[in-house]
Amino acid sequence: MRIDKDEMFNKFIDILLSRGLCEKDSKEAAQNFVESSLDGMYSHGVNRFPRVIDYIDKGIIKVDNKEFVEQELGALEIINGNLAMGNLVAKHSMDRAIKLAKKHGIGAVAIRNTNHWMRAGAYGWQAANANCASICWTNTISNMPAWGGIEALIGNNPIVFSIPRENKEHIVVDMAMSQFSYGKIEQMSLENKDLPVYGGYDTKGNLTKNPNEIEKTQRPLPIGYWKGSALSIALDLFASLIAGGLTSPLIKEKCNIEYSICQMMIVIDSTRLNHLQRGNTNIEETIKQIKKARRIDSNTEIRYPGEREYKTRLENKKLGIPVNQKIWDSILKL
Amino acid sequence: MRIDKDEMFNKFIDILLSRGLCEKDSKEAAQNFVESSLDGMYSHGVNRFPRVIDYIDKGIIKVDNKEFVEQELGALEIINGNLAMGNLVAKHSMDRAIKLAKKHGIGAVAIRNTNHWMRAGAYGWQAANANCASICWTNTISNMPAWGGIEALIGNNPIVFSIPRENKEHIVVDMAMSQFSYGKIEQMSLENKDLPVYGGYDTKGNLTKNPNEIEKTQRPLPIGYWKGSALSIALDLFASLIAGGLTSPLIKEKCNIEYSICQMMIVIDSTRLNHLQRGNTNIEETIKQIKKARRIDSNTEIRYPGEREYKTRLENKKLGIPVNQKIWDSILKL
Repeated sequence: MRIDKDEMFNKFIDILLSRGLCEKDSKEAAQNFVESSLDGMYSHGVNRFPRVIDYIDKGIIKVDNKEFVEQELGALEIINGNLAMGNLVAKHSMDRAIKLAKKHGIGAVAIRNTNHWMRAGAYGWQAANANCASICWTNTISNMPAWGGIEALIGNNPIVFSIPRENKEHIVVDMAMSQFSYGKIEQMSLENKDLPVYGGYDTKGNLTKNPNEIEKTQRPLPIGYWKGSALSIALDLFASLIAGGLTSPLIKEKCNIEYSICQMMIVIDSTRLNHLQRGNTNIEETIKQIKKARRIDSNTEIRYPGEREYKTRLENKKLGIPVNQKIWDSILKL
Repeated sequence: MRIDKDEMFNKFIDILLSRGLCEKDSKEAAQNFVESSLDGMYSHGVNRFPRVIDYIDKGIIKVDNKEFVEQELGALEIINGNLAMGNLVAKHSMDRAIKLAKKHGIGAVAIRNTNHWMRAGAYGWQAANANCASICWTNTISNMPAWGGIEALIGNNPIVFSIPRENKEHIVVDMAMSQFSYGKIEQMSLENKDLPVYGGYDTKGNLTKNPNEIEKTQRPLPIGYWKGSALSIALDLFASLIAGGLTSPLIKEKCNIEYSICQMMIVIDSTRLNHLQRGNTNIEETIKQIKKARRIDSNTEIRYPGEREYKTRLENKKLGIPVNQKIWDSILKL
């Protein structure tokens, strides 16, 4: 089934209002869930909504709390998320980072003690819509072994790079450090299908494409094996050092479920760059070259990062957002 | 054979002086080559030295040129490398970025029209030694197909994340977006050994561990397949947009060999962070947990990024730097 975006938006607002969020917060949070769903990121949009309400009901997300600035250091601010609604903390923090970038050329915020920001890419799009390039990442609770280890100790720590384009079809990478998300592994397991490439270890300790085996071992594979493991550790320690918050293993140890996490947002304003005002076209020329390159399969387009999300957005705006009937029914009951 | 670091340093200075670099430049450049070699990064240290001299002799690296600031935007500076010696441009630019970070909390430089900076990690260590966290990356000439494509169109664009530690055993990730460097592929091919995991495509279009096949197809594999491809494209376009320089495909098209590339350096000062002054120990606790995690192979340590380089440095300082006899002989003749 498909649900019209406005219907979904209004439904989310009603539910969030019923949980004690004020009108402004409800609208902003609902918009984040709807926009992620429009872009096809259902796992962090409509499909995630019931779990967020559950976290509100359990008091893990504290809807009466507001984030606050711990320290101002010129173009850098340290923000305490105060365990408020994660996607609101992140949106407000990105607003601040953009403001800092407009003033200083580059600006950044480091956030500690916050909740899950939902779709990481949302903040890359937000920056790009303000004509800024950005790097954003979050740490997560331990969910992947470090390279050479068995227990899930490090996080999959999604990172975003965004590059603005004048036509608003921005370049946005949004990726976790694991080859596949647990959501994807679960979906393929339910469909009884193999993953397209190795996604983790089986119960015998061998690399496997069998999602069911990876669910058993809880040993997903980092992208690029040792490389993604190293990158994940660095992202975690970087964010924790600058924000002053918990690392993935400490979130696991001290919270056991995923809250009190860290995020980094680094933003560069492109509007004052002399070379762009002179009409530099290198980016557009490069995208054209990538799109027209010789393909492995002539029927399968080569895509630049963010292209699929933009196209899905146009489609879902017109046709409505695809939703699993059971999930939508459960939302209607919230 | 092993060569004492001071002997190597003095030899490099002599050769660089003979190519017209001034004394200060010769010392700084020589130090970069020696330090990378000390850390075990021979491919971008001693082994690379002859090629750099060749580039100087051919006029690709212009030793009389100096980099200059194109634009100052507060905490961000745009630098024109002016096709000067790449590792000098990068070192001086990192000095500037550190200064900006000390003043504004965060600082950044975007460099265009520069030459290869040799070992990417060098600038991460430089930042960390100044008590700063950093993100640095460079683009390269086209050397890897985008996901779904056949021709080598995108770069492998190495990225660095560095996190300072009080004991100076910093956390430094330094990795290209390809699963293996061409250097590693060549080495394994010469040794007639398979790569430990898939490293690219064979002549039949299948994924292969055979390095010789990958040399034939020139189709190395990005880390995490589609993920590393997307990341590579984003890093290239980000640096090109902010620095105003060429992207990987445009370097290939306009230069044919690797020069006039772009680099980004983003630096955050850790010395004024209140939470660190209060003695936050999250980083050290986390490293301990990673080190003591249960291992796949009890004889194989789990390492944090940068650990091996630090240990190799201690060893090579004591025992001398391992050098291939033929390479050292060729250097003595330069």
